[in-house]
Amino acid sequence: MTQKRTVFFVSDRTAITAVTLGESLLTQFDNINFEQATLPFIDTTAKAKKAVREINRAAVADGQRPIIFSTLIDPEIRRIVFDCAGLVLDFFETFISRLEKELSTSSAKIMGRYHAMTNTGTYDVRINAVNYALANDDGISLKNFNQADLILIGVSRTGKTPTCLYLALQFGIFAANYPLTEELFSKGYSRLPESLFPFRKKLFGLNINPERLQAIREKRRPDSNYSSFEKCRMEVAMAKSIFISERIPYLNVTAMSVEEIATKILHEMHLARKYT
Amino acid sequence: MTQKRTVFFVSDRTAITAVTLGESLLTQFDNINFEQATLPFIDTTAKAKKAVREINRAAVADGQRPIIFSTLIDPEIRRIVFDCAGLVLDFFETFISRLEKELSTSSAKIMGRYHAMTNTGTYDVRINAVNYALANDDGISLKNFNQADLILIGVSRTGKTPTCLYLALQFGIFAANYPLTEELFSKGYSRLPESLFPFRKKLFGLNINPERLQAIREKRRPDSNYSSFEKCRMEVAMAKSIFISERIPYLNVTAMSVEEIATKILHEMHLARKYT
Repeated sequence: MTQKRTVFFVSDRTAITAVTLGESLLTQFDNINFEQATLPFIDTTAKAKKAVREINRAAVADGQRPIIFSTLIDPEIRRIVFDCAGLVLDFFETFISRLEKELSTSSAKIMGRYHAMTNTGTYDVRINAVNYALANDDGISLKNFNQADLILIGVSRTGKTPTCLYLALQFGIFAANYPLTEELFSKGYSRLPESLFPFRKKLFGLNINPERLQAIREKRRPDSNYSSFEKCRMEVAMAKSIFISERIPYLNVTAMSVEEIATKILHEMHLARKYT
Repeated sequence: MTQKRTVFFVSDRTAITAVTLGESLLTQFDNINFEQATLPFIDTTAKAKKAVREINRAAVADGQRPIIFSTLIDPEIRRIVFDCAGLVLDFFETFISRLEKELSTSSAKIMGRYHAMTNTGTYDVRINAVNYALANDDGISLKNFNQADLILIGVSRTGKTPTCLYLALQFGIFAANYPLTEELFSKGYSRLPESLFPFRKKLFGLNINPERLQAIREKRRPDSNYSSFEKCRMEVAMAKSIFISERIPYLNVTAMSVEEIATKILHEMHLARKYT
């Protein structure tokens, strides 16, 4: 029988850090059925007590200790929550004391600093990047391509749009994208669209296995020419030949998440997050 | 003089977890100048040795130990990297052994599980949500509002679009948005657009301080009526009166990041991530 455990991500703010850290650890235990609950914005003693009641109820219901991933900072709130009936894994204390010692200074111990809007400049960079991605999606217009940090190219349904949006939101990168369409291939040879020549150094290709492309397109337009295996196979082969002959760096994204695609591209194009 | 330290985020995959952990800790030390470098995809012994050379060069250049936040899992790669001239904060070992003990089982110790595309269903949920957000942005069309998990309303430039995209990418939430425009206010009274009546339970309002709204609009259309303080003040007041009179939950986003806005909305609307 599969072991079941309730897991709580507890934070004084968004809980994004607690969830990210906790889930990255839980992926290492695939024989256990984790029931997950997020408890964000635990920033008063009243909310802390309510959180403890919820954790303790789960302990009774499961007949097992819940596991608590905490990024709580405030000493009084920590004292209340850590007195619960669960196993507490405390991200803050574990590392902060070693850092204080190394840096010979004490930490601020102020809640909610991370993921907070510490300056409006950061906000502007990200929002401008999102607006840029939206205005320069799918080859709508090339007139702002000179402002791009990066231009993704690939056939329809290789994940260009979500990757551009992720790069904008998470990294403030100005990412445009341009589709490699049938017309480019229909003449029996494949070449880069001339309009992209001036931006060659910003180009990055996305490609995919034809089986996966067909499955994605089939959900969008079932039983169409667009989603036929033969068309998917041909388009993917043509795109690859362009990437190789034009020496454009590219990725096969078949088994990759948006996070992996985005970070891999940044790494290969020597780009970095544009805000701190 | 401000102390300077070089910080490395080292991972066998995207380094998103290492960066999240490290940066959330570094925000607690604001009297130190941290120089950050991300070393993702360290998945071979050759890359591990290269990473060590880079860390050791920084140690010599700074005359101080660099700080290394590691999520490395592979024992051989860990052995190489942890032999560097820096202080290694080892996220994996610190918590995984306590979890193994608690769960009476050993962990998989397989690289790159988190942020990997473990199933295509997850991919589909997120991409469908992004497509939904793009197709239902800024009141383009209301015909798919019945599919929405959430409909954000607010005046122009309150962050509706980036919030919807973030909710889609990170949580798979179908989030539409609808602008509260001048026409609604021009008749001297403010009320919810009738077309939104059927979706009342999905509505969530975004509001902002007029000073901040003016600053954002001024960058977009300098010296316009749109960015005048009087217009910003009037619109914000009208929007607030709609939220209150119609009992629509709302947030003042003036000092909030996209992450904070999104997680706060999920929390208040009792919505959760739609994929695991």
